[in-house]
Amino acid sequence: MAKSGKGRHRRGRQHIPVGAPPGTLIADPLAHPTHLRLTLIAPDRHHSIDHATMADIVGNRDKWPVIWLDCAGLADVALIEEIGRQFGLHPLALEDVVNSGQRPKVEFFDDYVFVALRVPDQASLLHYEQISIFFGEKFVITFQDQPGDPFDPIRRHVATEGPNRLRERKADYLAYALIDAVVDSYFTPIEMLSDKIEKVEESILDGTHKKPMQDLHGLRREIMGLKGILWPLRDALAALIRNDDPFVMRETKIFLNDTLDHAMRMIELVEIQRDTLTGLIEVHLSLAQARTNDVISLLTIVSTIFIPLTFLVGVWGMNFDPDLSPWNMPELRSYYGYPAALLFMISIAAALFGLFKWKKWL
Amino acid sequence: MAKSGKGRHRRGRQHIPVGAPPGTLIADPLAHPTHLRLTLIAPDRHHSIDHATMADIVGNRDKWPVIWLDCAGLADVALIEEIGRQFGLHPLALEDVVNSGQRPKVEFFDDYVFVALRVPDQASLLHYEQISIFFGEKFVITFQDQPGDPFDPIRRHVATEGPNRLRERKADYLAYALIDAVVDSYFTPIEMLSDKIEKVEESILDGTHKKPMQDLHGLRREIMGLKGILWPLRDALAALIRNDDPFVMRETKIFLNDTLDHAMRMIELVEIQRDTLTGLIEVHLSLAQARTNDVISLLTIVSTIFIPLTFLVGVWGMNFDPDLSPWNMPELRSYYGYPAALLFMISIAAALFGLFKWKKWL
Amino acid sequence: MAKSGKGRHRRGRQHIPVGAPPGTLIADPLAHPTHLRLTLIAPDRHHSIDHATMADIVGNRDKWPVIWLDCAGLADVALIEEIGRQFGLHPLALEDVVNSGQRPKVEFFDDYVFVALRVPDQASLLHYEQISIFFGEKFVITFQDQPGDPFDPIRRHVATEGPNRLRERKADYLAYALIDAVVDSYFTPIEMLSDKIEKVEESILDGTHKKPMQDLHGLRREIMGLKGILWPLRDALAALIRNDDPFVMRETKIFLNDTLDHAMRMIELVEIQRDTLTGLIEVHLSLAQARTNDVISLLTIVSTIFIPLTFLVGVWGMNFDPDLSPWNMPELRSYYGYPAALLFMISIAAALFGLFKWKKWL
Amino acid sequence: MAKSGKGRHRRGRQHIPVGAPPGTLIADPLAHPTHLRLTLIAPDRHHSIDHATMADIVGNRDKWPVIWLDCAGLADVALIEEIGRQFGLHPLALEDVVNSGQRPKVEFFDDYVFVALRVPDQASLLHYEQISIFFGEKFVITFQDQPGDPFDPIRRHVATEGPNRLRERKADYLAYALIDAVVDSYFTPIEMLSDKIEKVEESILDGTHKKPMQDLHGLRREIMGLKGILWPLRDALAALIRNDDPFVMRETKIFLNDTLDHAMRMIELVEIQRDTLTGLIEVHLSLAQARTNDVISLLTIVSTIFIPLTFLVGVWGMNFDPDLSPWNMPELRSYYGYPAALLFMISIAAALFGLFKWKKWL
Amino acid sequence: MAKSGKGRHRRGRQHIPVGAPPGTLIADPLAHPTHLRLTLIAPDRHHSIDHATMADIVGNRDKWPVIWLDCAGLADVALIEEIGRQFGLHPLALEDVVNSGQRPKVEFFDDYVFVALRVPDQASLLHYEQISIFFGEKFVITFQDQPGDPFDPIRRHVATEGPNRLRERKADYLAYALIDAVVDSYFTPIEMLSDKIEKVEESILDGTHKKPMQDLHGLRREIMGLKGILWPLRDALAALIRNDDPFVMRETKIFLNDTLDHAMRMIELVEIQRDTLTGLIEVHLSLAQARTNDVISLLTIVSTIFIPLTFLVGVWGMNFDPDLSPWNMPELRSYYGYPAALLFMISIAAALFGLFKWKKWL
Repeated sequence: MAKSGKGRHRRGRQHIPVGAPPGTLIADPLAHPTHLRLTLIAPDRHHSIDHATMADIVGNRDKWPVIWLDCAGLADVALIEEIGRQFGLHPLALEDVVNSGQRPKVEFFDDYVFVALRVPDQASLLHYEQISIFFGEKFVITFQDQPGDPFDPIRRHVATEGPNRLRERKADYLAYALIDAVVDSYFTPIEMLSDKIEKVEESILDGTHKKPMQDLHGLRREIMGLKGILWPLRDALAALIRNDDPFVMRETKIFLNDTLDHAMRMIELVEIQRDTLTGLIEVHLSLAQARTNDVISLLTIVSTIFIPLTFLVGVWGMNFDPDLSPWNMPELRSYYGYPAALLFMISIAAALFGLFKWKKWL
Repeated sequence: MAKSGKGRHRRGRQHIPVGAPPGTLIADPLAHPTHLRLTLIAPDRHHSIDHATMADIVGNRDKWPVIWLDCAGLADVALIEEIGRQFGLHPLALEDVVNSGQRPKVEFFDDYVFVALRVPDQASLLHYEQISIFFGEKFVITFQDQPGDPFDPIRRHVATEGPNRLRERKADYLAYALIDAVVDSYFTPIEMLSDKIEKVEESILDGTHKKPMQDLHGLRREIMGLKGILWPLRDALAALIRNDDPFVMRETKIFLNDTLDHAMRMIELVEIQRDTLTGLIEVHLSLAQARTNDVISLLTIVSTIFIPLTFLVGVWGMNFDPDLSPWNMPELRSYYGYPAALLFMISIAAALFGLFKWKKWL
Repeated sequence: MAKSGKGRHRRGRQHIPVGAPPGTLIADPLAHPTHLRLTLIAPDRHHSIDHATMADIVGNRDKWPVIWLDCAGLADVALIEEIGRQFGLHPLALEDVVNSGQRPKVEFFDDYVFVALRVPDQASLLHYEQISIFFGEKFVITFQDQPGDPFDPIRRHVATEGPNRLRERKADYLAYALIDAVVDSYFTPIEMLSDKIEKVEESILDGTHKKPMQDLHGLRREIMGLKGILWPLRDALAALIRNDDPFVMRETKIFLNDTLDHAMRMIELVEIQRDTLTGLIEVHLSLAQARTNDVISLLTIVSTIFIPLTFLVGVWGMNFDPDLSPWNMPELRSYYGYPAALLFMISIAAALFGLFKWKKWL
Repeated sequence: MAKSGKGRHRRGRQHIPVGAPPGTLIADPLAHPTHLRLTLIAPDRHHSIDHATMADIVGNRDKWPVIWLDCAGLADVALIEEIGRQFGLHPLALEDVVNSGQRPKVEFFDDYVFVALRVPDQASLLHYEQISIFFGEKFVITFQDQPGDPFDPIRRHVATEGPNRLRERKADYLAYALIDAVVDSYFTPIEMLSDKIEKVEESILDGTHKKPMQDLHGLRREIMGLKGILWPLRDALAALIRNDDPFVMRETKIFLNDTLDHAMRMIELVEIQRDTLTGLIEVHLSLAQARTNDVISLLTIVSTIFIPLTFLVGVWGMNFDPDLSPWNMPELRSYYGYPAALLFMISIAAALFGLFKWKKWL
Repeated sequence: MAKSGKGRHRRGRQHIPVGAPPGTLIADPLAHPTHLRLTLIAPDRHHSIDHATMADIVGNRDKWPVIWLDCAGLADVALIEEIGRQFGLHPLALEDVVNSGQRPKVEFFDDYVFVALRVPDQASLLHYEQISIFFGEKFVITFQDQPGDPFDPIRRHVATEGPNRLRERKADYLAYALIDAVVDSYFTPIEMLSDKIEKVEESILDGTHKKPMQDLHGLRREIMGLKGILWPLRDALAALIRNDDPFVMRETKIFLNDTLDHAMRMIELVEIQRDTLTGLIEVHLSLAQARTNDVISLLTIVSTIFIPLTFLVGVWGMNFDPDLSPWNMPELRSYYGYPAALLFMISIAAALFGLFKWKKWL
């Protein structure tokens, strides 16, 4: 999945033939088969239809205060167009639904609001699934390609007995609850990221990590991906709160504000992670340089001590003939020549060693 | 082409003699010959005149709801001035048309809107062709120098049978379709850039790329060029949407918003590419340093082990005369002198080797 | 505490089951037992009830111009919900109270204002305690988990004899005094940070600090933590001043402006600290490189002087047989061969030494 | 010129005794002698008076629709003050005229507009001359210190026969033409800068430039100087366009917009130049490191191959006496000892060489 | 002074016991004794009272159009409180007066404006003295701790004979003149900084500066300090101009605009200095690396040439016995063995030397 998902993300809208009229829906060849689930909601009752049909939707639409149509799998573009016609959704918005790879955004239309979001793949922060939410006065429609369902808790919550805000309020509150569930789904991967960074940090500061740059680079890519989602997400939430759309009630905005606050908190966490990474790269480079320095110092010390000595033994290994001239290496024939030479060399080594000690190189 | 095109881009407006009145049109000596194509558009019919003349334009202008004049090749400035007079275009805008190298921008005049755009050379992101679009209530005029035509799909779409938004709506929708085609033409080169970056990334992380800095520098130049186009492009689109110009209808603005959204997505992709490049440079520098470190460590280990040994063999190669004094190198005459010396040297080497192992340098 | 506190901070809201209705209060398992302290305030008298009960609160609420309820320890969520019901506090705000790890923020409700703040752990800038303040026209409610009380000076000031702004003014002034105390509690740790940076700076410039990167990294983490608090804190204070909330009187806003000014000053101090750290890292890397350079220079000089000499002594140590040919090493038999060789080598060494001196490498 | 000009620029307003009332005009001791040129402009005629006097100005002021007074050389402050009195110019604006070193700016007064600009010294981007322009409904006054005249083309254009926008329109259009000439005078030096950067870029990527840092630093200083001019210039032009000053007519604003667009284009070019420079510095550092790495690798390879061999020949050069013991270097007396030793050493060298090849170090 | 001043700056407000009511004045133990100077100003006359008392102030306050009270030395907080009561100054503003270390700021009260400024210590940009200015319709009050007086020129200017703007206009113009004097006092130290940077720049580019990082770090600290003053100063001046305060007349705002312009110019100078410093650090690091590279290259060349030669002489110094076998080093007994060996070694050295020349390493 990872490979193809990435390819899909990157190619984005490209498979639409250039020059095709905008708003043409063309199914992604890798999309999952479409499956509709209809949830009918009233303050005092609720009903859920799995594998719903268009007839279910049309038949129930006006009978319930709020209906929630969840469309999982984006392969059946004809059905999606049919839904769009039924609820009067703009072709461009539907195009955004079908072509994954949208940035999180909010668009306001006369009768409804379109919210595009992205859900992180829980295993890694490099892949994201797109979730599209339309909501008007009396309906919420959600589109997602992956069958794995981040909305299950909301569905369970709708079904709980007793008084229940999700059933008592209008569609905007249900939409808020769905958006909130999506936003909160970022906390876990962000924390996993923090843990990974912390582990790398420890191993860098210990000096036990041999090749941290590759890890740091991978972490930075994850953070860059997160940034590319969270910043537009924050803007989308702020637009939703700021806008005077009649469907988003004042009370719901207080809740959306709370969601925005969570998004802001995540952004700050991610900013701190980014700064930490930048710092770790510097730390790593500095420690690597320090190690090089240590190694070079050792080489220098060993060389500087032994090179003069090796020269000296070379001198006394020369073959000038002492027999022919009293000037030719008379020390070779001196009685204490050898011990004196050894002593001389030892004292040179000791002096150099002391010099290095004094210069704090040892 | 590349060489001269670059020179043209860089000299920009310079060939206009300083002090010439603003709005003087002077043809670029490298411009292509001018070729007019007139497309006449009504909801129920359409007609296309290749190699159109001024007479065609004047004769058909009031008879059709929308006319689209496409002027390819900017060599014939007299004709361009004539077109300008016919449609009441401002001399400064015409000057911008003829002098390529404009930043993407929008200018609002009383009777029309002027949009300057740039199309990327598909092979590389270092060269761009300028495309100028004027549109009023009933006309669209496009200027471009290169005969290669990014507008062909639009022209084909106009000619399709059946109901057709491009024919049913006003000139502003046609202008939108042209702008959208230009903006979407950036997706392919941006993806090619992503692919190139990915390849460089892999080869850097593998350590198989020998001279990645030159490649990274080239990629960065492409990204810098893209940035210099996409940022003003986004501003121009936003201005077009924000402005209360009577020719741009509310419905068309929804479509322009979609185009703006594509531009925003590209900007985010380019930002991520830029951050990735910055990261790759750091990774490369760090890995290069790590390799230097490895090499120096090897040198240090080999030197540190052999330098003392070489000193020792030098000692035993000295010519102090053992005949003259029992102090002079008696070990040379000892029965097990040589094996003992070898053993001594082997044990020193082993000790140093063990030390390096213990210090984790091996 | 440090360990668990950090864990609590990082997990934040996570222990709330996803899908639970927003506004559900769930106690942090590490929270301290709840302890209420009620301070009743009138211009001419005041009364304090330690270990207050809900009955105390309900009974006194309308009898005094201002009441201050301080709730230390957040374990008893039932009690906190009871307080919320009594004063009409929004469930989301109470959720923020119980789930520590909020960014400093201000939220305006119809009857009261909610202010979330963070108090630095005095020993280090990596851990912070959350303090939540609600204030309406006639009440101030403060929540904090740690029993250690930053509000003691305010409580003593309320109790001083004589005319007293804290008793004479409304609840907004008391709230200001509490916020001001929290903000001013940052000065001490910021100065401790400055002192630490100064010490590291000195030791780096001296070259006496062996491993400054780890210290610099730790300091940077503290500064990053501070930034993540101070920037939202400034925004929250500015929002409090800018807002037209009826409870915050114009005169109090002059005082809040002063608090904002302190926050701005801290931000500038922290910015300067950050720049100083960045500079210190560069200084450190540069000095480390300079040291490497010195070491390598020494190695080069020693090697460059002795390697040619060692070669020469090697030459005169060769065993070409002078007996067999007048061409074979006649110098070994020359009368002054040895002294001439020594002299030759000394002059080479001196020449190289002079060359290095002249090239400023020594 | 360069030296003194720089000194003048840097001292700026300093030679005014502190405490002198603001608006005191004190001539720069290095200023050129003042020379007035008066150009009288009407749609159908024009007249030019070189070496004009105050009498010429007073006498003609009300007789012509537009007069243009060009004051070259700022030494005669009394005359400048007299001009100021005649046209009602504010003392602070005149002070800015006389004290060169102003940032580009626009100031709006009741009866006129004051525009301060800077012209680049064509040879280099480190020095700039200040040009001050005042314009009201019927007059334009320009001040400049250098006799070299960037306004000559405008003056010639005023004098051309036939209908002529410069003569037909009001003073604001003349002022626009002068400002436009000043702004366009930046294109040439910016392109020269691009050429210089390109040359340095080529030589760095070739590796043929030995000391590029000094060049890069010089180029960066030029860019920094340009930035310090172009950013305020853009702001000044935008202020001129945005402002509702009665003298700047709507039609002229279209032309000023074009000038602003040129300024924006320059800013983008300069930004790209700056990014290119930053990139080049990184490329240079990386290539320098790569070269160091190559050199060190060579050293390591040569050393690692020869150091063990040199040790071996040292071993066989030892003087252990084979006569005294069969253990003492029996190999020296073996029949094939020497060729075997050579073969042994060659095989060691070959093995090491192969190892390096395999490790990709060669 | 330097030491204690710094300590005072850093401790800031800290010596106020936490919990003391805001607005409590507590003298800095290092403050100078208070000395009041009263200057009475009317268009046609003026009077100055050194060592003024409160009686002087009260007695003259209503008799003169403008009075200027200069309070040097902040030790006598009782007197400062008395002045505050007399002119109705807000306790928080007085607290800011007494507690040095404020950022430059402007605060608007009903009857007066409070301006806090900082004067640079002329010797260095690391220490600043605080100057506080209050001005209403008819009074200006200045507070400063240091007896050294930057206001002397203003005082002399007030006392000059003849018509005089400082006497003719209201208190706002006098306040402007004082603010202008303070702002202009930054030009000298900024230029001294430019000179210092230029000196360091030259010595770095020459390569004659041995340890520039410490100098660059010091310069950066000065610039950071300046930034922390100039940015808020600009904001304060802009607030003063933008605000609709009745005391600041329109004509005075033109003058304040000029002061703001000076501040903007300084900010740009400081920005350029900062960029120059950043560039110099890079240049220095690059040159240091280049030097290391040169040194290593020398080492490599010397080693690479001599190591093989030393190996060769080692070979011919081996003691294989030529007597025992014709295979054992026959070359030692060849007639031209020694000259051939020398020639062989010379040709190897020449070949390597040529190789290095060809590779451009020499």
